Amino acid sequence: MNQDALAHTLGHRFNDAALLRTALTHRSHSAHNNERLEFLGDSVLNCVVADELYRRFPGLPEGDLSRIRAIMVRQQTLFERADALGIGELLLLGEGELKSGGKRRPSILADALEAIIGAVYIDGGFDAARHVVCAVLAPVLNDVDPAVLSKDAKTLLQEYLQGRRMPLPQYSIVATDGEAHCQRFKVECSIPQLTIRAVGEGPTRRAAEQDAAGLAYRLASGN
Amino acid sequence: MNQDALAHTLGHRFNDAALLRTALTHRSHSAHNNERLEFLGDSVLNCVVADELYRRFPGLPEGDLSRIRAIMVRQQTLFERADALGIGELLLLGEGELKSGGKRRPSILADALEAIIGAVYIDGGFDAARHVVCAVLAPVLNDVDPAVLSKDAKTLLQEYLQGRRMPLPQYSIVATDGEAHCQRFKVECSIPQLTIRAVGEGPTRRAAEQDAAGLAYRLASGN
Repeated sequence: MNQDALAHTLGHRFNDAALLRTALTHRSHSAHNNERLEFLGDSVLNCVVADELYRRFPGLPEGDLSRIRAIMVRQQTLFERADALGIGELLLLGEGELKSGGKRRPSILADALEAIIGAVYIDGGFDAARHVVCAVLAPVLNDVDPAVLSKDAKTLLQEYLQGRRMPLPQYSIVATDGEAHCQRFKVECSIPQLTIRAVGEGPTRRAAEQDAAGLAYRLASGN
Repeated sequence: MNQDALAHTLGHRFNDAALLRTALTHRSHSAHNNERLEFLGDSVLNCVVADELYRRFPGLPEGDLSRIRAIMVRQQTLFERADALGIGELLLLGEGELKSGGKRRPSILADALEAIIGAVYIDGGFDAARHVVCAVLAPVLNDVDPAVLSKDAKTLLQEYLQGRRMPLPQYSIVATDGEAHCQRFKVECSIPQLTIRAVGEGPTRRAAEQDAAGLAYRLASGN
Protein backbone atom coordinates (compact mmCIF):
# COMPACT_ATOMS: atom_id res chain seq x y z
CA MET A 1 0.00 0.00 0.00
CA ASN A 2 1.06 3.59 -0.60
CA GLN A 3 -0.29 7.01 0.32
CA ASP A 4 -2.51 7.18 -2.77
CA ALA A 5 -4.12 3.89 -1.88
CA LEU A 6 -4.71 5.12 1.67
CA ALA A 7 -6.33 8.31 0.37
CA HIS A 8 -8.53 6.18 -1.88
CA THR A 9 -9.56 3.98 1.05
CA LEU A 10 -10.36 7.08 3.10
CA GLY A 11 -12.49 8.37 0.25
CA HIS A 12 -10.68 11.69 0.07
CA ARG A 13 -8.63 12.93 -2.86
CA PHE A 14 -6.02 15.32 -1.48
CA ASN A 15 -5.46 18.62 -3.26
CA ASP A 16 -2.24 18.89 -1.30
CA ALA A 17 -0.65 15.45 -0.99
CA ALA A 18 2.09 16.86 1.23
CA LEU A 19 -0.50 17.18 4.01
CA LEU A 20 -1.03 13.42 4.10
CA ARG A 21 2.70 12.87 4.18
CA THR A 22 3.02 15.26 7.13
CA ALA A 23 0.18 13.45 8.91
CA LEU A 24 2.14 10.21 8.57
CA THR A 25 5.37 11.72 9.88
CA HIS A 26 6.20 10.91 13.50
CA ARG A 27 8.24 13.35 15.54
CA SER A 28 11.07 10.82 15.70
CA HIS A 29 11.49 11.24 11.94
CA SER A 30 11.43 14.99 11.44
CA ALA A 31 10.86 18.33 13.11
CA HIS A 32 8.16 18.88 10.48
CA ASN A 33 5.90 16.19 11.89
CA ASN A 34 2.25 15.39 12.56
CA GLU A 35 1.86 16.87 16.05
CA ARG A 36 0.07 20.05 15.01
CA LEU A 37 -2.23 18.15 12.66
CA GLU A 38 -2.94 15.71 15.47
CA PHE A 39 -4.00 18.59 17.74
CA LEU A 40 -6.39 19.79 15.05
CA GLY A 41 -7.63 16.35 14.03
CA ASP A 42 -8.38 15.38 17.60
CA SER A 43 -10.79 18.28 17.91
CA VAL A 44 -12.37 17.62 14.51
CA LEU A 45 -12.84 13.97 15.48
CA ASN A 46 -14.46 14.89 18.79
CA CYS A 47 -16.76 17.32 17.04
CA VAL A 48 -17.87 14.90 14.32
CA VAL A 49 -18.50 12.11 16.80
CA ALA A 50 -20.44 14.49 19.08
CA ASP A 51 -22.58 15.47 16.11
CA GLU A 52 -23.20 11.86 15.06
CA LEU A 53 -24.18 10.78 18.56
CA TYR A 54 -26.35 13.87 19.07
CA ARG A 55 -28.35 13.06 15.94
CA ARG A 56 -28.45 9.29 16.27
CA PHE A 57 -29.58 9.28 19.89
CA PRO A 58 -32.05 12.12 20.40
CA GLY A 59 -33.18 10.64 23.68
CA LEU A 60 -29.81 10.24 25.37
CA PRO A 61 -28.78 12.71 28.08
CA GLU A 62 -25.50 14.59 27.86
CA GLY A 63 -23.69 12.34 30.34
CA ASP A 64 -24.34 9.24 28.25
CA LEU A 65 -23.30 11.00 25.05
CA SER A 66 -20.02 12.03 26.71
CA ARG A 67 -19.36 8.54 27.97
CA ILE A 68 -20.05 6.91 24.61
CA ARG A 69 -17.90 9.43 22.80
CA ALA A 70 -15.02 8.84 25.20
CA ILE A 71 -15.10 5.15 24.29
CA MET A 72 -15.27 5.89 20.57
CA VAL A 73 -12.32 8.27 20.46
CA ARG A 74 -10.04 6.59 22.96
CA GLN A 75 -6.62 5.40 21.94
CA GLN A 76 -7.52 1.72 21.74
CA THR A 77 -10.43 2.33 19.36
CA LEU A 78 -8.38 4.63 17.13
CA PHE A 79 -5.49 2.20 17.13
CA GLU A 80 -7.73 -0.63 15.96
CA ARG A 81 -9.15 1.50 13.15
CA ALA A 82 -5.70 2.79 12.15
CA ASP A 83 -4.42 -0.75 12.13
CA ALA A 84 -7.32 -1.92 9.96
CA LEU A 85 -6.45 0.83 7.48
CA GLY A 86 -2.85 -0.38 7.33
CA ILE A 87 -1.47 2.96 8.46
CA GLY A 88 1.45 1.35 10.26
CA GLU A 89 3.39 0.49 7.15
CA LEU A 90 3.05 4.04 5.80
CA LEU A 91 4.38 5.77 8.88
CA LEU A 92 7.58 7.76 8.64
CA LEU A 93 9.50 6.95 11.80
CA GLY A 94 12.97 7.66 13.11
CA GLU A 95 15.54 4.91 13.28
CA GLY A 96 15.00 4.21 16.98
CA GLU A 97 11.21 4.03 16.80
CA LEU A 98 11.43 1.82 13.74
CA LYS A 99 13.66 -0.68 15.54
CA SER A 100 11.58 -0.72 18.70
CA GLY A 101 8.37 -1.53 16.84
CA GLY A 102 6.88 1.95 16.52
CA LYS A 103 4.79 0.86 13.53
CA ARG A 104 2.68 -1.24 15.85
CA ARG A 105 2.61 1.11 18.85
CA PRO A 106 -1.01 2.01 19.67
CA SER A 107 -0.25 5.61 20.63
CA ILE A 108 1.68 6.29 17.41
CA LEU A 109 -1.01 4.78 15.20
CA ALA A 110 -3.87 6.48 17.03
CA ASP A 111 -2.09 9.85 16.83
CA ALA A 112 -1.41 9.38 13.12
CA LEU A 113 -5.09 8.67 12.48
CA GLU A 114 -6.02 11.90 14.26
CA ALA A 115 -3.41 13.75 12.21
CA ILE A 116 -4.86 12.31 9.01
CA ILE A 117 -8.29 13.62 10.03
CA GLY A 118 -6.69 17.03 10.62
CA ALA A 119 -5.04 16.85 7.20
CA VAL A 120 -8.33 16.08 5.48
CA TYR A 121 -9.94 18.97 7.35
CA ILE A 122 -7.29 21.44 6.19
CA ASP A 123 -7.36 20.03 2.66
CA GLY A 124 -11.09 19.71 2.14
CA GLY A 125 -12.94 21.40 4.99
CA PHE A 126 -15.25 20.15 7.69
CA ASP A 127 -17.60 18.10 5.53
CA ALA A 128 -14.73 16.24 3.92
CA ALA A 129 -13.35 15.44 7.37
CA ARG A 130 -16.76 14.38 8.56
CA HIS A 131 -17.10 11.88 5.73
CA VAL A 132 -13.71 10.39 6.50
CA VAL A 133 -14.41 10.14 10.23
CA CYS A 134 -17.77 8.49 9.63
CA ALA A 135 -16.28 6.05 7.14
CA VAL A 136 -13.35 5.15 9.38
CA LEU A 137 -15.45 4.81 12.51
CA ALA A 138 -18.46 3.23 10.81
CA PRO A 139 -17.93 -0.20 12.39
CA VAL A 140 -17.77 1.42 15.82
CA LEU A 141 -20.59 3.91 15.27
CA ASN A 142 -22.92 1.26 13.93
CA ASP A 143 -22.16 -0.98 16.90
CA VAL A 144 -23.03 1.58 19.56
CA ASP A 145 -25.56 0.13 21.96
CA PRO A 146 -26.44 2.97 24.32
CA ALA A 147 -28.14 0.58 26.74
CA VAL A 148 -24.87 -1.23 27.17
CA LEU A 149 -22.47 1.69 26.92
CA SER A 150 -24.29 4.02 29.25
CA LYS A 151 -24.31 1.43 31.99
CA ASP A 152 -21.42 1.39 34.37
CA ALA A 153 -18.93 -1.03 32.81
CA LYS A 154 -17.83 -2.71 36.04
CA THR A 155 -21.45 -3.38 36.98
CA LEU A 156 -22.20 -4.69 33.52
CA LEU A 157 -19.22 -7.06 33.62
CA GLN A 158 -20.05 -8.24 37.12
CA GLU A 159 -23.67 -8.99 36.15
CA TYR A 160 -22.51 -10.82 33.06
CA LEU A 161 -20.11 -13.04 35.02
CA GLN A 162 -22.53 -13.67 37.88
CA GLY A 163 -25.20 -14.69 35.36
CA ARG A 164 -22.76 -17.39 34.20
CA ARG A 165 -21.72 -18.37 37.74
CA MET A 166 -18.16 -17.25 37.16
CA PRO A 167 -15.88 -15.67 39.75
CA LEU A 168 -15.58 -11.88 39.84
CA PRO A 169 -12.88 -10.15 37.81
CA GLN A 170 -9.71 -8.93 39.46
CA TYR A 171 -8.37 -5.41 38.98
CA SER A 172 -4.75 -4.43 39.43
CA ILE A 173 -2.74 -1.32 38.62
CA VAL A 174 -0.09 -2.16 36.05
CA ALA A 175 1.37 1.32 35.48
CA THR A 176 1.09 4.97 36.26
CA ASP A 177 2.49 7.56 33.88
CA GLY A 178 2.88 11.27 33.87
CA GLU A 179 3.63 13.91 36.44
CA ALA A 180 1.51 14.42 39.52
CA HIS A 181 -0.73 17.00 37.86
CA CYS A 182 -1.63 14.85 34.86
CA GLN A 183 -1.27 11.24 35.89
CA ARG A 184 -2.46 8.35 33.74
CA PHE A 185 -3.32 5.02 35.31
CA LYS A 186 -3.25 1.67 33.59
CA VAL A 187 -5.30 -1.04 35.20
CA GLU A 188 -5.60 -4.67 34.21
CA CYS A 189 -8.91 -6.46 34.54
CA SER A 190 -8.33 -10.20 34.54
CA ILE A 191 -10.82 -13.03 34.26
CA PRO A 192 -8.63 -16.13 34.52
CA GLN A 193 -11.45 -18.54 33.70
CA LEU A 194 -11.89 -16.85 30.31
CA THR A 195 -8.15 -16.15 29.90
CA ILE A 196 -9.01 -12.49 29.52
CA ARG A 197 -6.56 -9.78 30.54
CA ALA A 198 -7.79 -6.37 29.46
CA VAL A 199 -5.82 -3.22 30.14
CA GLY A 200 -7.67 0.06 30.47
CA GLU A 201 -6.46 3.55 31.13
CA GLY A 202 -7.67 6.83 32.54
CA PRO A 203 -6.81 9.85 34.67
CA THR A 204 -7.81 8.05 37.88
CA ARG A 205 -7.64 4.49 39.09
CA ARG A 206 -11.42 4.28 39.01
CA ALA A 207 -11.65 5.56 35.45
CA ALA A 208 -8.97 3.10 34.34
CA GLU A 209 -10.88 0.25 36.02
CA GLN A 210 -14.07 1.21 34.21
CA ASP A 211 -12.16 1.35 30.95
CA ALA A 212 -10.59 -2.05 31.55
CA ALA A 213 -13.95 -3.51 32.57
CA GLY A 214 -15.52 -2.22 29.37
CA LEU A 215 -12.84 -3.88 27.26
CA ALA A 216 -13.08 -7.10 29.24
CA TYR A 217 -16.85 -7.10 28.83
CA ARG A 218 -16.52 -6.73 25.09
CA LEU A 219 -14.01 -9.57 24.96
CA ALA A 220 -16.12 -11.81 27.19
CA SER A 221 -19.49 -11.16 25.57
CA GLY A 222 -18.37 -10.62 21.99
CA ASN A 223 -20.29 -7.30 22.00
CA MET B 1 -33.09 42.51 24.82
CA ASN B 2 -34.91 39.49 23.43
CA GLN B 3 -33.93 36.33 21.57
CA ASP B 4 -34.22 38.02 18.18
CA ALA B 5 -31.84 40.74 19.25
CA LEU B 6 -29.38 38.13 20.53
CA ALA B 7 -29.54 36.25 17.23
CA HIS B 8 -28.91 39.55 15.45
CA THR B 9 -25.88 40.27 17.66
CA LEU B 10 -24.54 36.78 17.00
CA GLY B 11 -24.95 37.36 13.29
CA HIS B 12 -27.01 34.24 12.75
CA ARG B 13 -30.63 34.15 11.62
CA PHE B 14 -32.17 30.98 13.01
CA ASN B 15 -34.29 28.84 10.72
CA ASP B 16 -35.59 27.12 13.83
CA ALA B 17 -35.96 29.68 16.61
CA ALA B 18 -36.92 26.94 19.06
CA LEU B 19 -33.27 25.83 19.04
CA LEU B 20 -32.15 29.14 20.52
CA ARG B 21 -34.84 28.92 23.16
CA THR B 22 -33.65 25.42 24.09
CA ALA B 23 -30.06 26.69 24.27
CA LEU B 24 -31.18 29.30 26.80
CA THR B 25 -33.10 26.81 28.95
CA HIS B 26 -31.30 25.68 32.09
CA ARG B 27 -32.03 22.25 33.51
CA SER B 28 -33.62 23.87 36.57
CA HIS B 29 -36.37 25.19 34.26
CA SER B 30 -37.31 22.18 32.18
CA ALA B 31 -36.42 18.61 31.33
CA HIS B 32 -36.13 19.83 27.74
CA ASN B 33 -33.04 21.91 28.46
CA ASN B 34 -29.71 22.92 26.96
CA GLU B 35 -27.49 20.09 28.22
CA ARG B 36 -27.34 18.13 24.98
CA LEU B 37 -26.72 21.28 22.94
CA GLU B 38 -23.98 22.25 25.39
CA PHE B 39 -22.28 18.86 24.82
CA LEU B 40 -22.36 19.49 21.07
CA GLY B 41 -21.46 23.18 21.27
CA ASP B 42 -18.47 22.50 23.50
CA SER B 43 -16.95 20.27 20.83
CA VAL B 44 -17.75 22.70 18.01
CA LEU B 45 -16.14 25.50 20.02
CA ASN B 46 -13.01 23.45 20.66
CA CYS B 47 -12.77 22.57 17.00
CA VAL B 48 -13.20 26.12 15.71
CA VAL B 49 -10.68 27.50 18.19
CA ALA B 50 -8.21 24.74 17.31
CA ASP B 51 -8.62 25.64 13.64
CA GLU B 52 -8.14 29.37 14.27
CA LEU B 53 -5.02 28.85 16.37
CA TYR B 54 -3.60 26.32 13.90
CA ARG B 55 -3.90 28.84 11.04
CA ARG B 56 -2.93 31.97 12.96
CA PHE B 57 0.18 30.51 14.53
CA PRO B 58 1.87 28.25 11.97
CA GLY B 59 5.05 28.20 14.04
CA LEU B 60 3.61 27.14 17.38
CA PRO B 61 4.06 23.57 18.57
CA GLU B 62 1.10 21.45 19.61
CA GLY B 63 1.68 21.95 23.34
CA ASP B 64 1.40 25.71 23.08
CA LEU B 65 -1.68 25.48 20.88
CA SER B 66 -3.32 23.25 23.49
CA ARG B 67 -2.42 25.58 26.32
CA ILE B 68 -3.70 28.67 24.53
CA ARG B 69 -6.92 26.93 23.56
CA ALA B 70 -7.50 25.84 27.16
CA ILE B 71 -7.36 29.46 28.24
CA MET B 72 -9.68 30.58 25.45
CA VAL B 73 -12.41 28.04 26.13
CA ARG B 74 -12.28 27.95 29.91
CA GLN B 75 -15.31 28.86 31.95
CA GLN B 76 -14.11 32.30 32.97
CA THR B 77 -13.49 33.39 29.36
CA LEU B 78 -16.84 32.04 28.17
CA PHE B 79 -18.62 33.64 31.11
CA GLU B 80 -17.14 37.04 30.28
CA ARG B 81 -18.20 36.75 26.65
CA ALA B 82 -21.67 35.48 27.56
CA ASP B 83 -22.03 38.35 30.01
CA ALA B 84 -20.97 40.86 27.37
CA LEU B 85 -23.68 39.47 25.07
CA GLY B 86 -26.29 39.96 27.80
CA ILE B 87 -27.23 36.28 27.81
CA GLY B 88 -28.04 36.33 31.53
CA GLU B 89 -31.30 38.16 31.18
CA LEU B 90 -32.51 35.78 28.48
CA LEU B 91 -31.90 32.59 30.45
CA LEU B 92 -34.84 30.42 31.37
CA LEU B 93 -34.18 29.31 34.93
CA GLY B 94 -36.13 27.46 37.58
CA GLU B 95 -37.50 29.35 40.58
CA GLY B 96 -34.67 28.34 42.88
CA GLU B 97 -31.86 29.25 40.50
CA LEU B 98 -33.54 32.53 39.73
CA LYS B 99 -33.66 33.47 43.41
CA SER B 100 -30.10 32.43 44.11
CA GLY B 101 -28.67 34.57 41.31
CA GLY B 102 -28.36 31.94 38.57
CA LYS B 103 -28.44 34.64 35.90
CA ARG B 104 -25.01 35.76 37.00
CA ARG B 105 -23.50 32.35 37.77
CA PRO B 106 -20.38 31.82 35.60
CA SER B 107 -21.02 28.11 35.01
CA ILE B 108 -24.61 28.69 33.87
CA LEU B 109 -23.68 31.49 31.50
CA ALA B 110 -20.67 29.68 30.08
CA ASP B 111 -22.75 26.53 29.50
CA ALA B 112 -25.49 28.55 27.81
CA LEU B 113 -22.97 30.11 25.44
CA GLU B 114 -21.73 26.64 24.49
CA ALA B 115 -25.32 25.53 23.96
CA ILE B 116 -25.96 28.53 21.70
CA ILE B 117 -22.95 27.51 19.61
CA GLY B 118 -24.42 24.00 19.40
CA ALA B 119 -27.77 25.45 18.36
CA VAL B 120 -26.20 27.50 15.58
CA TYR B 121 -24.32 24.41 14.41
CA ILE B 122 -27.51 22.34 14.19
CA ASP B 123 -29.40 25.21 12.60
CA GLY B 124 -26.84 26.40 10.07
CA GLY B 125 -23.96 23.93 9.92
CA PHE B 126 -20.28 24.17 10.76
CA ASP B 127 -19.49 27.37 8.87
CA ALA B 128 -22.34 29.24 10.52
CA ALA B 129 -21.10 28.08 13.92
CA ARG B 130 -17.57 29.05 13.04
CA HIS B 131 -18.63 32.59 12.19
CA VAL B 132 -20.46 32.93 15.50
CA VAL B 133 -17.55 31.53 17.51
CA CYS B 134 -15.07 33.84 15.81
CA ALA B 135 -17.33 36.85 16.31
CA VAL B 136 -18.00 36.07 19.96
CA LEU B 137 -14.39 35.29 20.78
CA ALA B 138 -12.87 37.99 18.56
CA PRO B 139 -11.67 40.15 21.48
CA VAL B 140 -9.95 37.11 22.98
CA LEU B 141 -8.59 35.71 19.72
CA ASN B 142 -7.17 39.06 18.67
CA ASP B 143 -5.50 39.47 22.04
CA VAL B 144 -3.64 36.18 21.99
CA ASP B 145 0.04 36.74 22.62
CA PRO B 146 1.69 33.33 22.24
CA ALA B 147 4.91 34.55 23.82
CA VAL B 148 3.00 35.35 26.98
CA LEU B 149 0.48 32.53 26.95
CA SER B 150 2.88 29.74 26.25
CA LYS B 151 5.04 30.66 29.20
CA ASP B 152 4.28 29.12 32.53
CA ALA B 153 1.91 31.57 34.21
CA LYS B 154 3.36 31.27 37.70
CA THR B 155 6.84 31.96 36.36
CA LEU B 156 5.59 34.90 34.32
CA LEU B 157 3.84 36.42 37.33
CA GLN B 158 6.84 35.88 39.56
CA GLU B 159 9.18 37.53 37.05
CA TYR B 160 6.79 40.43 36.68
CA LEU B 161 6.60 41.03 40.43
CA GLN B 162 10.32 40.56 41.02
CA GLY B 163 11.03 43.07 38.27
CA ARG B 164 9.02 45.57 40.30
CA ARG B 165 10.57 44.57 43.64
CA MET B 166 7.26 43.34 44.96
CA PRO B 167 6.76 40.37 47.28
CA LEU B 168 5.81 37.01 45.75
CA PRO B 169 2.14 36.10 45.36
CA GLN B 170 0.47 33.76 47.80
CA TYR B 171 -1.56 30.75 46.70
CA SER B 172 -4.27 29.13 48.81
CA ILE B 173 -6.93 26.53 48.07
CA VAL B 174 -10.35 28.05 48.51
CA ALA B 175 -12.53 25.11 47.45
CA THR B 176 -12.56 21.61 46.07
CA ASP B 177 -15.61 20.27 44.27
CA GLY B 178 -16.64 16.98 42.77
CA GLU B 179 -16.15 13.35 43.61
CA ALA B 180 -12.73 11.80 44.05
CA HIS B 181 -12.47 10.71 40.41
CA CYS B 182 -13.25 14.13 38.95
CA GLN B 183 -12.20 16.73 41.49
CA ARG B 184 -12.04 20.43 40.74
CA PHE B 185 -9.77 22.70 42.69
CA LYS B 186 -10.19 26.43 43.20
CA VAL B 187 -7.10 28.32 44.21
CA GLU B 188 -6.76 31.97 45.07
CA CYS B 189 -3.65 33.89 44.06
CA SER B 190 -3.35 37.01 46.14
CA ILE B 191 -1.00 39.98 45.73
CA PRO B 192 -1.90 42.20 48.70
CA GLN B 193 0.27 45.09 47.53
CA LEU B 194 -1.81 45.33 44.34
CA THR B 195 -5.06 44.36 46.11
CA ILE B 196 -5.39 41.50 43.62
CA ARG B 197 -7.20 38.31 44.53
CA ALA B 198 -7.61 36.08 41.49
CA VAL B 199 -9.35 32.70 41.70
CA GLY B 200 -8.39 29.99 39.23
CA GLU B 201 -9.61 26.47 38.79
CA GLY B 202 -8.48 23.15 37.43
CA PRO B 203 -8.44 19.39 37.90
CA THR B 204 -5.37 19.57 40.14
CA ARG B 205 -4.06 22.04 42.66
CA ARG B 206 -1.16 22.85 40.37
CA ALA B 207 -3.40 23.48 37.37
CA ALA B 208 -5.64 25.72 39.48
CA GLU B 209 -2.59 27.65 40.67
CA GLN B 210 -1.45 28.21 37.09
CA ASP B 211 -4.91 29.34 36.14
CA ALA B 212 -5.06 31.76 39.07
CA ALA B 213 -1.57 33.05 38.31
CA GLY B 214 -2.56 33.71 34.70
CA LEU B 215 -5.56 35.74 35.80
CA ALA B 216 -3.54 37.61 38.40
CA TYR B 217 -0.89 38.38 35.79
CA ARG B 218 -3.50 39.82 33.46
CA LEU B 219 -4.93 41.93 36.26
CA ALA B 220 -1.49 43.12 37.40
CA SER B 221 -0.03 43.86 33.97
CA GLY B 222 -3.17 44.93 32.17
CA ASN B 223 -2.39 42.39 29.42
